[in-house]
Amino acid sequence: MSVVTLTTDFGTGSPYVAAMKGVILSINPAVTLVDLTHDIRPQDVRHGAIVLDDVTDRFPTGTIHTAVIDPGVGTDRAILYARIGNQQYVAPDNGLLSRIIRRTKPSVVIRLENPEFWLPEISNTFHGRDIMAPVAARLSLGLNPEQLGPLAEAIDRLAWPEVKQTPQRIDGEVVEIDSFGNLITNITAEMLTNRPTDNRVCTVCNIYETWGIFHAYAQHPDGTLMALIGSNERLELAVVGDNASARLGIPVGSPVALVWE
Amino acid sequence: MSVVTLTTDFGTGSPYVAAMKGVILSINPAVTLVDLTHDIRPQDVRHGAIVLDDVTDRFPTGTIHTAVIDPGVGTDRAILYARIGNQQYVAPDNGLLSRIIRRTKPSVVIRLENPEFWLPEISNTFHGRDIMAPVAARLSLGLNPEQLGPLAEAIDRLAWPEVKQTPQRIDGEVVEIDSFGNLITNITAEMLTNRPTDNRVCTVCNIYETWGIFHAYAQHPDGTLMALIGSNERLELAVVGDNASARLGIPVGSPVALVWE
Amino acid sequence: MSVVTLTTDFGTGSPYVAAMKGVILSINPAVTLVDLTHDIRPQDVRHGAIVLDDVTDRFPTGTIHTAVIDPGVGTDRAILYARIGNQQYVAPDNGLLSRIIRRTKPSVVIRLENPEFWLPEISNTFHGRDIMAPVAARLSLGLNPEQLGPLAEAIDRLAWPEVKQTPQRIDGEVVEIDSFGNLITNITAEMLTNRPTDNRVCTVCNIYETWGIFHAYAQHPDGTLMALIGSNERLELAVVGDNASARLGIPVGSPVALVWE
Repeated sequence: MSVVTLTTDFGTGSPYVAAMKGVILSINPAVTLVDLTHDIRPQDVRHGAIVLDDVTDRFPTGTIHTAVIDPGVGTDRAILYARIGNQQYVAPDNGLLSRIIRRTKPSVVIRLENPEFWLPEISNTFHGRDIMAPVAARLSLGLNPEQLGPLAEAIDRLAWPEVKQTPQRIDGEVVEIDSFGNLITNITAEMLTNRPTDNRVCTVCNIYETWGIFHAYAQHPDGTLMALIGSNERLELAVVGDNASARLGIPVGSPVALVWE
Repeated sequence: MSVVTLTTDFGTGSPYVAAMKGVILSINPAVTLVDLTHDIRPQDVRHGAIVLDDVTDRFPTGTIHTAVIDPGVGTDRAILYARIGNQQYVAPDNGLLSRIIRRTKPSVVIRLENPEFWLPEISNTFHGRDIMAPVAARLSLGLNPEQLGPLAEAIDRLAWPEVKQTPQRIDGEVVEIDSFGNLITNITAEMLTNRPTDNRVCTVCNIYETWGIFHAYAQHPDGTLMALIGSNERLELAVVGDNASARLGIPVGSPVALVWE
Repeated sequence: MSVVTLTTDFGTGSPYVAAMKGVILSINPAVTLVDLTHDIRPQDVRHGAIVLDDVTDRFPTGTIHTAVIDPGVGTDRAILYARIGNQQYVAPDNGLLSRIIRRTKPSVVIRLENPEFWLPEISNTFHGRDIMAPVAARLSLGLNPEQLGPLAEAIDRLAWPEVKQTPQRIDGEVVEIDSFGNLITNITAEMLTNRPTDNRVCTVCNIYETWGIFHAYAQHPDGTLMALIGSNERLELAVVGDNASARLGIPVGSPVALVWE
């Protein structure tokens, strides 16, 4: 039983998503389809890259993750197949995979160039339906990825903001806001190893600050700002029982600093 | 073919939902996953409890309903397995099941305490992914629930507003607003047995009133307020062809009275 | 492995959708359920008709498309089974199928009148759950559609705006706005056969105009208005990298003209 996931910026409930599912099921009626998310901000490749990096590891070995955030559709940007760790990906070569590959080097990267595995007619505006969906469906039936095209020599790498670490200070930023309004940063639990996380550390974001780093929302009073290590092992800022993003007006990209006394 | 449903307050399209699905499919690739809803108002346990009570009976015998509205995650609140009627539930012990059990006494209630069936690493912020998802997946493979932990002696019961009934009057309230804006109350069709439902009964809510209780929207003129017995066998207030909630400004919790002359 | 799709105006995440899925899975646990979309504008039969026409052809032969945009529920409007091309449909007879049948004549149309295949209790407000869902599930198990009721003699046909074509001019209108804000018209690629699509044609909508008809968003500068043939082979107006509908304030129903010099 093969799993194919779909990640797009089409919006949940978009009939474009359904069109992709129809194409996939027409080729492999036994596939298990999972919506990863369709609420990537329109044409925001970085948002898509972070979500793929956060979630795809949870899926069964061999799952085929199909990601269509594709503002360059109709240009000569390539479409890639990649095997990264034990997961497989089909995505435009626009940086969508550039966060996952910071952690894990791809074992195979192939450029989709063989139209034999695409739909017979290819539009210039919807390669998700016309190229990526049929390729994902055929991979789910056991197609050898090497038949899809030549090995790719490189893969598009976006510049990602680096976290700066000194003994007294870590400087990162908000990279994502979740559906509860929690501000998720690029500062990882690993960066805090051997550093105190009690009242000696202050988290600073915009005009706000909070002392100590916790592990559960319930460790702080309702309505107060807190810093904690969230479920993806990254530092996040939350207002307990409320929506921190709406309450504080902090957007993605805002600097977040941890400061030790 | 086992069915696992998911009910959360994560928002449709949240990658947190996808993470739970990845965990479940990694354990049981043949499971049938169904989204019950992910649009429970954030941390609103009562909203979740009403939806579970309304919908879960429609599913096949043995379906495993996994519900993650869990503001107490990371505290010592228990997580429960319950068998209620012919359905199964995995949910925090915070009142989520407290509406269903008003109708049907659970035949088995167990506290999830055996970490053997959880993910190897447990966060303090996402037990839906780390505990409930793997337990649901293993139940779908036939795991005996008794292996999950000890029998629970009690189950958290929220106080629910009671409907008051006298010969001349029934007093209830709006408990839910559906996606059409219809105002769904806690007054049931059963409470109307042997009472007239024609022009002798007046439904009163806030400054609005309407005479007679109907069974189909089409029985009233477009744009007018009407009372009817809806598809869940409960009294609802609707504005025909319009959104009653937006039009009248009536929130959940508003009193609704039926008055006989 | 049979596929049943669901199209409704209930809103994504509506528990009413989940109720339909529970009914279907109780009858055929092995069915593959696909959400076509639940974001049809409430009670907007025309919107539903366009989406069904755009997407259903992509699905495997024999797929059963169940469409519940049903403002007339509880009146004497019929519910139909139809075979159109290689797809099957279950929908109220209110015009939902009236766009598909402009292209392809139905080979079978049947009125659902045999309650043997419905739920035992039928509400007057939710025939999607009580009649259409169980019928779709039984069709997916191989039920002969002729058992559902008598042949229908006619099918409700909405009047659709016709495109007017002269040698110098094509007059159509915006029929749909997609999730990117692109304005999709009823002017098809076929209507442009043998006409110039370079700078000799001007697309006019409201106070806006743009020259030339393209095939990819990337053929025009960022932030500019362009006309192109989109993925459904219809003319659309887009603002590159932006939301044309929000930017220009053009609603569904607005006239769009192509003018040749």
